[in-house]
Amino acid sequence: MKKVNKKPTTLIYPVPAAMVSCGSNKNEYNIITIAWIGTINSIPPMCYVSIRKERYSHDIIKRNMEFVINYSTKDLVRAADFCGRISGKDYDKFKEMNITPRKGEKVDAPIIIESPINIECKVTEIKELGSHDMFLAEVVNIQVSENYIDQSNGTINMQHKDLMAYSHGKYIQLGDIIEQAGFSDKK
Amino acid sequence: MKKVNKKPTTLIYPVPAAMVSCGSNKNEYNIITIAWIGTINSIPPMCYVSIRKERYSHDIIKRNMEFVINYSTKDLVRAADFCGRISGKDYDKFKEMNITPRKGEKVDAPIIIESPINIECKVTEIKELGSHDMFLAEVVNIQVSENYIDQSNGTINMQHKDLMAYSHGKYIQLGDIIEQAGFSDKK
Repeated sequence: MKKVNKKPTTLIYPVPAAMVSCGSNKNEYNIITIAWIGTINSIPPMCYVSIRKERYSHDIIKRNMEFVINYSTKDLVRAADFCGRISGKDYDKFKEMNITPRKGEKVDAPIIIESPINIECKVTEIKELGSHDMFLAEVVNIQVSENYIDQSNGTINMQHKDLMAYSHGKYIQLGDIIEQAGFSDKK
Repeated sequence: MKKVNKKPTTLIYPVPAAMVSCGSNKNEYNIITIAWIGTINSIPPMCYVSIRKERYSHDIIKRNMEFVINYSTKDLVRAADFCGRISGKDYDKFKEMNITPRKGEKVDAPIIIESPINIECKVTEIKELGSHDMFLAEVVNIQVSENYIDQSNGTINMQHKDLMAYSHGKYIQLGDIIEQAGFSDKK
């Protein structure tokens, strides 16, 4: 297969279409939808979000050193898109999108109740990289909506049909399962 | 909706099922499949991979300060799974999986020719976090198989049906498009 060289760019997809909520009180609460997000360590569980310095949420997170990653679903696609494009300087995004904040269990930052999976994080370091600052953080608590928990064994259903991902300008559904991890061990 | 608190863990999915190749010559070439991967900066384009210290590829990348992220597809699912579970100490993974290395354009590390998208990276920093070391890197070149390029405008087809993602123990296909990014701007 012939290969074509392309200019260096950001191309790691798919990612979750994650709505990151922040602020320590109702007047400060804000949401920013973020694609530059991921797990960076397993023990302890750590993740990062990268945010442009000029974004309104950047300073809120820097001030409070906390945020919550909220998974979006098909029902939240408009809210996820809106929260990634409009500034919290100009809008109360919770009110505009009719979604509900509630103070986290282990952080003051709010979870989004309508989101089925809420990952509460405390920032351990802020790293300046150029256009973006990377916020490295430890996961301190997870909240999951009851209907995303398999009642037979207590695990979280990460293959739920409503969960939404983001890939290169498109919000997409998760597709069919091809194989289970580890299948190549078996003959 | 009632929420259940869960212990902190690593829960950011989906991610690409990326095969990371490394080594500066054929005797050293290796592949490790990695889920802890993502974009951390846009200008300049930067990404990271997090790897356990004890993995064979960890020291190879540390020595050469280069790697290539290769996207996997349905056809590569067995290779992707194998390369995530078996050590390069014991196997020549290219040979075992019948896949083909070729020295990168801007790095000595090999691309995987059968993979449609190859992201060549140079490590800028290694950060110890606990179980994993995070390799921060700059994207220096991208190679794309011709059949993944839209001939009408030269863009890369990141919605190609064969591309594969990984979510919580499952290799999955990308699903249907729900919306385009920015759709909430329009009435």
